[in-house]
Amino acid sequence: MKAVRLHNYHEQPVIEEVEQPTVSGPLDVVVKIGGAGVCRTDLHVIEEQWAEKSGVQLPYTIGHENAGWVHEVGSAVTNVAVGDTVILHPTPTCELCHACRAGDDMHCADRRFPGIDSDGGMAEYLLTSARACIKLDPGTRPDDVAALADAGITAYHAVRKAAPQLPPGTVCVVNGAGGLGHIGIQTLAAMSATTSVVVDRSAEALELAGELGADHTVLADGDHVQTVLDLTGGNGAEVVLDFVAEQGAQQDAFAMTRQGGSHYVIGYGSNIDVPTIDIISTERNVIGNLVGTYNDLVELMVLAEAGKVTLHTKKYPLSKALEALADLDAGRVRGRAILVPDNA
Amino acid sequence: MKAVRLHNYHEQPVIEEVEQPTVSGPLDVVVKIGGAGVCRTDLHVIEEQWAEKSGVQLPYTIGHENAGWVHEVGSAVTNVAVGDTVILHPTPTCELCHACRAGDDMHCADRRFPGIDSDGGMAEYLLTSARACIKLDPGTRPDDVAALADAGITAYHAVRKAAPQLPPGTVCVVNGAGGLGHIGIQTLAAMSATTSVVVDRSAEALELAGELGADHTVLADGDHVQTVLDLTGGNGAEVVLDFVAEQGAQQDAFAMTRQGGSHYVIGYGSNIDVPTIDIISTERNVIGNLVGTYNDLVELMVLAEAGKVTLHTKKYPLSKALEALADLDAGRVRGRAILVPDNA
Amino acid sequence: MKAVRLHNYHEQPVIEEVEQPTVSGPLDVVVKIGGAGVCRTDLHVIEEQWAEKSGVQLPYTIGHENAGWVHEVGSAVTNVAVGDTVILHPTPTCELCHACRAGDDMHCADRRFPGIDSDGGMAEYLLTSARACIKLDPGTRPDDVAALADAGITAYHAVRKAAPQLPPGTVCVVNGAGGLGHIGIQTLAAMSATTSVVVDRSAEALELAGELGADHTVLADGDHVQTVLDLTGGNGAEVVLDFVAEQGAQQDAFAMTRQGGSHYVIGYGSNIDVPTIDIISTERNVIGNLVGTYNDLVELMVLAEAGKVTLHTKKYPLSKALEALADLDAGRVRGRAILVPDNA
Amino acid sequence: MKAVRLHNYHEQPVIEEVEQPTVSGPLDVVVKIGGAGVCRTDLHVIEEQWAEKSGVQLPYTIGHENAGWVHEVGSAVTNVAVGDTVILHPTPTCELCHACRAGDDMHCADRRFPGIDSDGGMAEYLLTSARACIKLDPGTRPDDVAALADAGITAYHAVRKAAPQLPPGTVCVVNGAGGLGHIGIQTLAAMSATTSVVVDRSAEALELAGELGADHTVLADGDHVQTVLDLTGGNGAEVVLDFVAEQGAQQDAFAMTRQGGSHYVIGYGSNIDVPTIDIISTERNVIGNLVGTYNDLVELMVLAEAGKVTLHTKKYPLSKALEALADLDAGRVRGRAILVPDNA
Repeated sequence: MKAVRLHNYHEQPVIEEVEQPTVSGPLDVVVKIGGAGVCRTDLHVIEEQWAEKSGVQLPYTIGHENAGWVHEVGSAVTNVAVGDTVILHPTPTCELCHACRAGDDMHCADRRFPGIDSDGGMAEYLLTSARACIKLDPGTRPDDVAALADAGITAYHAVRKAAPQLPPGTVCVVNGAGGLGHIGIQTLAAMSATTSVVVDRSAEALELAGELGADHTVLADGDHVQTVLDLTGGNGAEVVLDFVAEQGAQQDAFAMTRQGGSHYVIGYGSNIDVPTIDIISTERNVIGNLVGTYNDLVELMVLAEAGKVTLHTKKYPLSKALEALADLDAGRVRGRAILVPDNA
Repeated sequence: MKAVRLHNYHEQPVIEEVEQPTVSGPLDVVVKIGGAGVCRTDLHVIEEQWAEKSGVQLPYTIGHENAGWVHEVGSAVTNVAVGDTVILHPTPTCELCHACRAGDDMHCADRRFPGIDSDGGMAEYLLTSARACIKLDPGTRPDDVAALADAGITAYHAVRKAAPQLPPGTVCVVNGAGGLGHIGIQTLAAMSATTSVVVDRSAEALELAGELGADHTVLADGDHVQTVLDLTGGNGAEVVLDFVAEQGAQQDAFAMTRQGGSHYVIGYGSNIDVPTIDIISTERNVIGNLVGTYNDLVELMVLAEAGKVTLHTKKYPLSKALEALADLDAGRVRGRAILVPDNA
Repeated sequence: MKAVRLHNYHEQPVIEEVEQPTVSGPLDVVVKIGGAGVCRTDLHVIEEQWAEKSGVQLPYTIGHENAGWVHEVGSAVTNVAVGDTVILHPTPTCELCHACRAGDDMHCADRRFPGIDSDGGMAEYLLTSARACIKLDPGTRPDDVAALADAGITAYHAVRKAAPQLPPGTVCVVNGAGGLGHIGIQTLAAMSATTSVVVDRSAEALELAGELGADHTVLADGDHVQTVLDLTGGNGAEVVLDFVAEQGAQQDAFAMTRQGGSHYVIGYGSNIDVPTIDIISTERNVIGNLVGTYNDLVELMVLAEAGKVTLHTKKYPLSKALEALADLDAGRVRGRAILVPDNA
Repeated sequence: MKAVRLHNYHEQPVIEEVEQPTVSGPLDVVVKIGGAGVCRTDLHVIEEQWAEKSGVQLPYTIGHENAGWVHEVGSAVTNVAVGDTVILHPTPTCELCHACRAGDDMHCADRRFPGIDSDGGMAEYLLTSARACIKLDPGTRPDDVAALADAGITAYHAVRKAAPQLPPGTVCVVNGAGGLGHIGIQTLAAMSATTSVVVDRSAEALELAGELGADHTVLADGDHVQTVLDLTGGNGAEVVLDFVAEQGAQQDAFAMTRQGGSHYVIGYGSNIDVPTIDIISTERNVIGNLVGTYNDLVELMVLAEAGKVTLHTKKYPLSKALEALADLDAGRVRGRAILVPDNA
C-alpha cells in the first residue's frame, strides 16, 4: 500500500509502497483510512522536536488524526465489525494499567501513539486496536470528521475541564482561532454560558470566530493584553485557553489570566517563564492539557452529530500529502487539511 | 504603644512609640497582641519585594501573623467580646464582593492585609475586623498558636487542595521542611494516606520531618531529583508541595512531578521556566497558592487543638524584634520565631 | 403602609395598614417593593405546612420573592445606595458563621427568611440587609425580574449543581414545566449540552417547553416513565430534576433515573419511599436542593440580562393579592404571578 | 472439583463435585481459591432477594469475595502469570463500554458478577478475567486478605467518596461496626481528620471500634439518634455512613444527618421513606454506594499492606461452608468468616 514515510529529520517525507498491516493480537483492528488530518505536530515531528520524547525509529509513517472503515478485526473484538465506519482515538491503550482503569487514556503506561511513535494513518491502512475505535453512523464520511480525532478532541478536552470554572459572569479567553481554536469556540458555546473573548493575529480568523459564536474578538496587535484587561474591568479572564503557546503568546496568555484563574496550555513551542511571586500573590494556575480521553471523543462526536461543532477543512488526495504539508507550513490552509484516498 | 516600624526599604525597622489604634467602624476590632510571628516575608518586605504589589506608604508597622486577646469591639460585632482569646485570619475582608460571597477570602476585592499593606501586628495592639477573628479556648496561649495564622494556614490550604489527588498509593513530595513545611508534613499525615517524601538541604530538618511523620526523607544534595524519581519507579510524585520555590528549588520541584500531576507553588522568590512541550506532553500543572480562607484557619485550629499539629517556636520579647529578624535572616531559627509582649 | 398579612392558618390573608419598616442595624436596608412573586409556597404557608419549621408568630406579612428600589440604608452599607434598583436574595445572612464563610447562604446559622419566618415583601416596603441586595441596571423593571428571586434562583441552583454531570450524550429529565421548570429548561440549555426531556401533565406547558429549548417533551399520562426509559435505551436519565416531588411524581422521578445517576428533589409535598436495595444495586442518589446562594442569583441575573432566560408572568396590583393567590391555587396562572405597586 | 452450589432458594446450598473451569477467551484467568469470604449477601441470595435482579439460573456456585493463586491464563493476559498471588475485583468487566472507559467498573454494561449472577468462588477454582486480577506480594496469604475483595472495597469506596466532605471539624457517623463497618472506621481514620462516631447495638463491637480508632462510640439503645444530635450541638453529622440500612437503622441514619449533609446508603434491606419537604428544607442527600472500582481495591491493598487496615476473620475449611453460613446467620461470627482450601 501507499504511505507517507519519514526517512530523515529535517527532510520531506517520501510517499512509497509498504506492506499493508494485518491483525495479530486478539484486539487488533486494521482500518482503511478515509480521512487523515494534517497537523502542525507533523511539521514538528519532521523538525525533530518529538524525536527524543517518542523514541521512534526512522523510517516510519506519520499521521495521527484518522477516521475510516474497519477492514479486519482480531478474534476478541466485539465493539466493531468489518465495514463499520469509525473515528479513531489517537492512542490504543492497554486497558490494564492504573491510568486505563481510571479512564485516563493519555497516561496509559503502555500506550502506543500511531503517527508519533509507530506507523500512523497517512497511508491506505492503519493498524490500531478495538480500544481506539468509535463506531459512527454508517452515513458519516470519515474525511468530514477526521479532524475531530486530534484537533477536535484536544480542544474539547480542555474546554470540558475548564467548563465548571466558567459560570455566567465569567470570561474565557480563546487564544488562537486556528484549527483547534475554532473547535474550542464552538464547544465552549455549547457547554457553558461564559463570555468568550477570542484573540488572534488574523482578522479573517476573528471574523470566522464571530460567526462561530465568539462574544468578543480582539486582534493580537501588540495591545491585546491591555484590551483584554480593559474588557474585564482590569481583572483578566477566569480561564485562558492557550491554543498557541509559542512566540510570546504563552506569556500574554498568563498575563490575561485573572487572580485565582487558570492558564490552560494546549498549544506548545516556547517556554513559559513566570516569577513565582506572581503565581502565589494572585493564586494563578498553569494547567497542562494532552489530547483527551476516549470518552471525550465519544462526547465530541455527539456534539458534532447534533450540528453543534462544524469543521472547516481542505481536502487533498493521499498522493498530494507533501503539498498539504507545504500549504500548512506556509499558512495557506484555512481550518484543517485532510488527506483522502486517491480514488475518493 | 510600642511598634516595629519600617521607615526605609533596605534598612532595619525601628521600634518606636505610636498611637494605639481604636475602633471606628461597626465591625472593627482592636486586639492586644499576645504572639506575632516573624516570617521570611518580613525580610522580603524590607527588601522592597512587595512595595509595588502592596502600594503601602512608609513608615508602617510590619507583622502579619497574629494572635492575642480582644481589647475593643465595634457596635455591630457579635462573634467575639472583649477579653476573648483570638487568632487572626491575615486579611479582614469586605463580606460583600463576589469572592467573599464564595468564601474565597484571599481574593476579596476590598481586602486589607495588615503587616503588608497597612499597620500590622509587631506592636502592642492591632486594628482588625470581626471577620478576621477566630475565638479560641480561653486557656490557649496566643504565642503558642500565632504561627498558625500565616505559616500554618498557608501550608494547610495547599494540603487541603491537594488531598483529593492523594489517595493511597500516590506519592507527595514536601519540598522544604522549614516553618511551613513542618506544618505541611503533619497536616498531610492527618488528612491523607499518601506516601510523603520530604526533601531539604538540612539533615537536621529531615530528622525533625521523620519525627513528624514523613515516610521518606531525601537530602537536597544535588542528586535529590534523581533520588525522588528512583523512589517512585522513575515516575515522580502525583503532587509536589513546593515550600521553597527559589534558587532552583522550583525547577527541581517541577522535575519531580509525575505526568498528570501538580506542582504546588507555595514559597516564592525565583522564576519558574518550563518548555510548554513539557507541560502538554505530560499534562502537568503548576498550581498557585495564597495563604488560605478563614474556614481553612478554623479547620487548622481543630487539628491543632486535637494535637495533630505541633509547632516548633522560639520566643522573643517585642523589644527584641530586630534580633529575631536577624536570627531568621542568618538561619539561626528552628521552626518559627514569635514576638511576645515585653512583660510576658 | 399596605401589607398582605396572615392572621390565622387555613384562612385567607388580610390586606391591611401596618407601620413602614425603618433601618436600625448598620447593614439594614429598606426596599420599596416593585415586584413580589406569588408562589406555591405561599399557599403551603397558609396551609400551615411551614408553621413548625419556621416558628413564625402570626400575624405577619408573607412574600419571599422580591425586587424593588433601595429606600433607606444603614450606616455601614456600601454596596447599594438609596434609589438603586435591586433584586433581593431571599435570606439576609449573618456573614460570620461557618456556612456564610463558605458562601453557603442557605445554611447560615443565623439567617432570616422574610416572608417565611418574618415579615415579607407582599407590602409596600420590606426590611432586608445589604447582604441580600444585588444591584441591577437602573433600567431594569423590578416586576420583570422578581420571579428570579426565588423560583429562578432555585431552578438555577439545581441546574448549576447538576451541570458537571451532564456532558454531551447524557439525558436530563425536567420533571414539571411550571414556574420553576420553565426557568430550569432555559438555564440547562444555556449551561450544558445534555439532551433535555421535559415531562408534564399539561400539553400547553410542554408546548412552551419546546419553544424554550426542550429536546423532547413527554406527556405525563401514566406511561411517561416507560416513555422516558424507551427514549434512553431502557437506561433512564443521568439526572432527573424533579420540580414537582408530590402526588407520586417523586416516585416516577426516581424510577426514571439511570444507574449511577441522581434524582434532584426541588419541589416538595409527598414522601420519597425507596427500597435501599434499589439504591445500592444501582448506586443512585437522591439530592436535596434549597433555593440557592447569593452568587447563584448574581449569575442568574447575568443570564437574564443576556436574554438567555425569559420569564412568563402575570401582574396584579398589591391590593389584588388575594385574587392572585386564588388564581394560583386554581391553576389559572401561566408562568408566575407578580404583585406590583397599586400605583404602578 | 468441590463447590458450594445453590440448587433451590430458601434451602441450604450443597457441597458437590463439579467440573473445574478452564480458560477459553484470550483474557480469561482461572484462579485457585485460597480464601473465599462469607457475606450477609450470600444469605440474601439464598433468601431469593437477588433472584430477579441477577437473573441467575440455579444451580450455581456462590461466593463473591475471593483471593488465591493464578492457575491458568488466556493467550492475551499480560498483567498476571501462573503462580501469582492475586486478589480479585468482584466483577470482570468488558473494558469497552462507556462506564469501563471512565473507570466506573460497577456500571459496566456487560459485567459479570461471579457468585451473584454466575459461578462464584466458594469452590476450589474460579473462572475470572485478567481485568479482575490484582497481583499481590507473593508472601501474602489469600485467606488473610480475601475479605477486602468485597467487604473491604465496599467500605473503602464509600469512605473515599465521602472524604472530601470531611475536613477537620466535621463529624462522620459510622452506622454499624460489623464486617464492613470495622474496615470503614480504619479507612476513615487513615484518609481524613474528621471526628468519627460509631453507632452499634453491640457493646462488644463498639469496644473493637474504639480500638480501631473511633473517636466516640454510641450504643444503639433507642436514644442513639438523640445522643448523636447532642454530640454535634444539635446539628447532626456531615456524613452518615450507613452500613446497616435495614430494620429502621436507615431512618435513624437519615435523622442523624446534618443540614447540607449526606446519608451514604451502603447496607440494604429496608425502605428509606422521607418527606420531600425534609429533603429540600435541609438540602440533605441520600447517596447510593455499590462495591467499588478496580482502582479502589488497588488503593485499599496499599492501605492493608501498610498495616493501616487490619481484618478480623474466622477461618473454615471449604467443606465446612454450611457451618460458616449458619454461624453468620446466627450472629456467631466476629469480623468476617473466610473459607480456605480443605488441605490448607
